[in-house]
Amino acid sequence: MDTLLLRKVAIDTYKENVAYLHRDCKLYRSEGFQALNKIEITDQQSGQSIIALLNIVDDDCITAPDELGLCEQAFGQLAAREGIPVLVAHAPIPESIRCIHRKIAGESLAQEDYLGIARDIAANRYSKIEIAAFLVACSELGLERDEVLYLTRAMIETGRRLDWSEPLVVDKHCIGGLPGNRTTMLIVPIVAAHGMLIPKTSSRAITSPAGTADTMEVLARVELTPDKLHEIVRSQRACLSWGGTASLAPVDDILISVERPLLMDSPGQLVASILAKKAAAGATHLIIDIPIGPTAKVRDRNSGLALRKLFEYVSDQLGLVLEVVFTDGRQPVGRGIGPVLEARDVMQVLENDPLAPHDLREKALQLAGRILEFDPDVRGGGGYAIAREILESGRALDKMQAIIHAQGRNPDPPQLAHLRYDVTASRDGVVTAIDNLQLAHIARLTGAPMAKGAGVDLQHKLGDTVRAGEPLYSIYAEFQADYRFAREAAEKASGVTVE
Amino acid sequence: MDTLLLRKVAIDTYKENVAYLHRDCKLYRSEGFQALNKIEITDQQSGQSIIALLNIVDDDCITAPDELGLCEQAFGQLAAREGIPVLVAHAPIPESIRCIHRKIAGESLAQEDYLGIARDIAANRYSKIEIAAFLVACSELGLERDEVLYLTRAMIETGRRLDWSEPLVVDKHCIGGLPGNRTTMLIVPIVAAHGMLIPKTSSRAITSPAGTADTMEVLARVELTPDKLHEIVRSQRACLSWGGTASLAPVDDILISVERPLLMDSPGQLVASILAKKAAAGATHLIIDIPIGPTAKVRDRNSGLALRKLFEYVSDQLGLVLEVVFTDGRQPVGRGIGPVLEARDVMQVLENDPLAPHDLREKALQLAGRILEFDPDVRGGGGYAIAREILESGRALDKMQAIIHAQGRNPDPPQLAHLRYDVTASRDGVVTAIDNLQLAHIARLTGAPMAKGAGVDLQHKLGDTVRAGEPLYSIYAEFQADYRFAREAAEKASGVTVE
Repeated sequence: MDTLLLRKVAIDTYKENVAYLHRDCKLYRSEGFQALNKIEITDQQSGQSIIALLNIVDDDCITAPDELGLCEQAFGQLAAREGIPVLVAHAPIPESIRCIHRKIAGESLAQEDYLGIARDIAANRYSKIEIAAFLVACSELGLERDEVLYLTRAMIETGRRLDWSEPLVVDKHCIGGLPGNRTTMLIVPIVAAHGMLIPKTSSRAITSPAGTADTMEVLARVELTPDKLHEIVRSQRACLSWGGTASLAPVDDILISVERPLLMDSPGQLVASILAKKAAAGATHLIIDIPIGPTAKVRDRNSGLALRKLFEYVSDQLGLVLEVVFTDGRQPVGRGIGPVLEARDVMQVLENDPLAPHDLREKALQLAGRILEFDPDVRGGGGYAIAREILESGRALDKMQAIIHAQGRNPDPPQLAHLRYDVTASRDGVVTAIDNLQLAHIARLTGAPMAKGAGVDLQHKLGDTVRAGEPLYSIYAEFQADYRFAREAAEKASGVTVE
Repeated sequence: MDTLLLRKVAIDTYKENVAYLHRDCKLYRSEGFQALNKIEITDQQSGQSIIALLNIVDDDCITAPDELGLCEQAFGQLAAREGIPVLVAHAPIPESIRCIHRKIAGESLAQEDYLGIARDIAANRYSKIEIAAFLVACSELGLERDEVLYLTRAMIETGRRLDWSEPLVVDKHCIGGLPGNRTTMLIVPIVAAHGMLIPKTSSRAITSPAGTADTMEVLARVELTPDKLHEIVRSQRACLSWGGTASLAPVDDILISVERPLLMDSPGQLVASILAKKAAAGATHLIIDIPIGPTAKVRDRNSGLALRKLFEYVSDQLGLVLEVVFTDGRQPVGRGIGPVLEARDVMQVLENDPLAPHDLREKALQLAGRILEFDPDVRGGGGYAIAREILESGRALDKMQAIIHAQGRNPDPPQLAHLRYDVTASRDGVVTAIDNLQLAHIARLTGAPMAKGAGVDLQHKLGDTVRAGEPLYSIYAEFQADYRFAREAAEKASGVTVE
């Protein structure tokens, strides 16, 4: 049997396994492989195999005719070393593709179907286009609520599941879409100061100007090994780390890598994604924040209610205690948008600074209060007062400092970017609307979150009276190109309506 | 504004534009690009730009930090040279993606929507996953017949359209699925010998053991320049060439590149694909061969009828004269499966060899007869007799020899492969079923069509009486590995039922 020599090709194809074969490779000719075919690569010694999409190479420097190249992710999966002999064959079609075709034809799928799909996706047997087919087939009108449950269970079962060995492990999640919404960095220290276990992992921004992990990174290290993370949670009852390394519900990450560029965001996928991640992280009690507003992800109360019912149905079946809280999604939360600016807002609230943004503080206290009420010893309705007391007494700040210390304080915290431009009101009046999407777009153009000190700083919020020429917000950027793009976008549409 | 130096990366990604950026490239960091984002690359001098999917590179040999690499297809589209400065920016989301989301949500789309989608696909603004989303959204229950028409028109309008300046330009198409079904190579010389214009372009096999272009290539050159092709058609009234170079309905090729690995084959896409290609090729009159059988693409007469109605509706609206013919799809046509074996069958029929496979001859005469009746001077029902006269008189053979000569006779025709294995009957009885799919699968495993001399040669067809131990068919292979795979598959399931 013919073999090829394994080679690592230093290309990051982002969650898609790609193999490289030279056009003059005798296997390419004789086996009738074609570009974009899926092939199976087997390490002859270990017997381990992976599936990858085939690209054809015309340059020996990338892959020679007697070699089989693998992109970085695929090479890592095979856990082999360069130069070993590998066997190459046509990849079998994953069994579960049949379920995808049944779904496309309009059928409902069963628990075992979703499990089969999740297993094949977790084993990287699906190409991106197959995942896209699955997502579209499931989208919109396509998933019954039992199917959402099945998908959620399948995503949990195909990954690691943390067990904190405590009856009450709390977590919170916002479905997203509100710039500056950094309540997590307030809720975690408040709740942990009360003694509840809240091992919080967060994501980095993908399309928004900052994720909680990006903002926390201004203050402390967020990329922690599983061992380190457990040690911190045991000592502090909390953490504020990046969740990317945990390999919880890995199928969710793979699905998201295709959902995102497709701009798909169906309620079923949203609920399955959030609940799978939280259940895998070992949460037992969960608060879901659904901001409602004309430019938020959820536009009106009826859509919010439908989403709430779906969250409740699936979490009940999973045995998760879950409460959904509708919050004000009409404008960004706090003043800053971008990692450095948001970290500033958070620390002002924790320090009980009189200049701290009131809305961020209030929202965090409300949500923390609801979480505290998961404690059987806290009387219904009594959570808010306890949260406020923890914040005002400085215990929340102390806890935050302890968490920062435990994770590793950032020795060289990034500063506010030096290029600044003020976007001003064109007339006297009252601020009647702030467009979350436009503000997020402008903040993203400033370079956030890659440029930590870049972003948008709001001087006025809804209901404020402003005069013509007065600054509505400032744009901060580190690079000239970013500065110009953001400024041009803001001049075209500031996102703030004054009437 | 920052620029990068253009570099060609010798990787063939098969109809997907991929750009390569080094992880240390300053643009990658500052612009917040991510792997799998789409970026827009602009040649500063010409102003021309293309869209490509981003891969991140960690090896200067592939793309250095100050370079922007493009895969072969993308490099060709930009029509620039290496080393020139290019601008790189986030790609705008194609306008028509909104229509995809409306389609996913269950809406019907209008003519202008399909035109927008086709234009964006033709301009390579869609990634494969966006195309997959479009296909799935359109699949199965998803396309109304007017939408099939709109899609067909959109595919025609976004490519070249040939004009032969004659009122009667005929073509034929089989919807596929039957191994050995090489009627085209008989119909073309018969019809052209009658004087009708039949500029036939065919495809190569993608998943089957041979396409007409693969089989014709055994006899003559099939990759012809547009000029050469026109010259041959003018002199011979016909050609038998590969259609891949013609850039007719290019959107169809791009859609197929995603449909194929997804194993998708919805009636709407099928009809749009075939009619767009034929209309773009300048056909005015068209015969569609729909084989019906338990292992053919169309399983029963009712499915065939539904497909026929769709063909008729769309072709009428396009102003194409079209007739659908249902044929016997219960078994392969002729004896040989694979280029050399099929070419042998075809030449036996043309040479009026008494050993020529009767079913191939009869089917070709029937279909040729129907095409001849498009001639206003041929009486309804009189086509078959004319076709038979052309064949028996040797005029069809003469015409075939003239076409072969015009296209360029293969100076070194491939021979039958030397490894042979006979699959025998395990009992006495009558052949009651032949599985097209299994026979195609086995023939593919022999190495056909890449190995031209490989394939399957049937000794018995439906209704034949066989004795235990008598050969049912022979397998031919050029390579040991192929031989073993094909033999193992045939031993596991021969595909021929004897009862």
